[in-house]
Amino acid sequence: MVSYKSIKAEILNGIVGRQWAPGELIPNEEDLARDYGCSRSTVNRALQELADLGILERRRKAGTRVAQRTSRGALIQIQIVRSEIEQSGRRYGYVLLHREVQAADSATAGLIDAPRGKPLLHLRCLHLADGVPYQLESRWISLVALPSARDVDFESVGPNEWLVTQVPYSRSEHIFSAAPPNAEERERLRLRPDEPVFVIERRTWLAAQALTYVRLAHPGLSYRMISREDDLLDETES
Amino acid sequence: MVSYKSIKAEILNGIVGRQWAPGELIPNEEDLARDYGCSRSTVNRALQELADLGILERRRKAGTRVAQRTSRGALIQIQIVRSEIEQSGRRYGYVLLHREVQAADSATAGLIDAPRGKPLLHLRCLHLADGVPYQLESRWISLVALPSARDVDFESVGPNEWLVTQVPYSRSEHIFSAAPPNAEERERLRLRPDEPVFVIERRTWLAAQALTYVRLAHPGLSYRMISREDDLLDETES
Repeated sequence: MVSYKSIKAEILNGIVGRQWAPGELIPNEEDLARDYGCSRSTVNRALQELADLGILERRRKAGTRVAQRTSRGALIQIQIVRSEIEQSGRRYGYVLLHREVQAADSATAGLIDAPRGKPLLHLRCLHLADGVPYQLESRWISLVALPSARDVDFESVGPNEWLVTQVPYSRSEHIFSAAPPNAEERERLRLRPDEPVFVIERRTWLAAQALTYVRLAHPGLSYRMISREDDLLDETES
Repeated sequence: MVSYKSIKAEILNGIVGRQWAPGELIPNEEDLARDYGCSRSTVNRALQELADLGILERRRKAGTRVAQRTSRGALIQIQIVRSEIEQSGRRYGYVLLHREVQAADSATAGLIDAPRGKPLLHLRCLHLADGVPYQLESRWISLVALPSARDVDFESVGPNEWLVTQVPYSRSEHIFSAAPPNAEERERLRLRPDEPVFVIERRTWLAAQALTYVRLAHPGLSYRMISREDDLLDETES
């Protein structure tokens, strides 16, 4: 009795060995069942699993092809900074540097996607890992969307941690970039000469309402943003 | 007759208006149906859609709560560089700078996750947008996994474009960072003084076999990696 897993491994070997290239048709179920000496339903299950993993592409009537991925998706999980630091086994530290209510001017209105003149809460915070500067946070919160932020001092809890307890969001935008540091970043993050910052900017909205804009700057020489995809085939290999 | 869409909008207003905070229980279906003057099945459909969107969390018996998202996922789509440039309306240019077969030494073996001494193809390529340097690519391809790469000159087609026609991959790793440029990056990317590079490193595997390692460096002052999430609620708002 031939298992679908061994058929899956066989087909995979054909792909690894370039018996069939990306975009190419592989034999139909009937022929594979004959070649491997198993039932068509066993072949079908193996093909379906490889298709679910994105290794094969199946089209009704058009047959099964080896997938040709022309774009690669990388999923970045951005945690609350406290969790990010603690999960790496380091001690989390937090300092509020600045807190001020402002009216949105032309620059900040554009950043947070809110009308000029509306009240914003501006915060600057430093997050540390084992006492070493890890992230400088510069944040604006819409006081129209989140009036209760006015009454929070943010001395002991960072704004990200507080925000997740307030409202969910329905839309977000992330921009990642490498930048020369400004004077405050150079000093607060204790950057070495010529050390750039890795910047994450994030905006969130709930329905049409802008909630917050944040710029997170990290020391370029130590910060890495990593996305690992588990091996789709681990089950086959074990 | 009250539509489930108007109920969805009502519940959303309750969340926006902070009637219920993240983590908090909202009233049960029966009470909501009475409050909104509609059937329980209409409420149920509205709640289910908001749960599917990640705005609510439903648990059998435990009721429905406003979701509290403590990590934010950002999906980065990394296209073939030619598509990335052409989709932005610019003309794509490509230059092969260097091509060499090497045996993996301790440094390159670590990068590509292959044993020392195994043959690698090393390539350096420049990708341009409207004639302006956009990306400097430094790539190693395993000639054990992809022996046919030895016969490709890569003069007119970049290695990424070629690779997608060769084998699929089942595992990938991406590392994003900000770095001071090395001398070649400074010259080839025509960087301004103090301009850092935005670096994407990618490794891919097919089953246990390492395929390629690539370092993609981009001019920091102009390059932005962007991830936009569509508004989950767009349907409600229209």
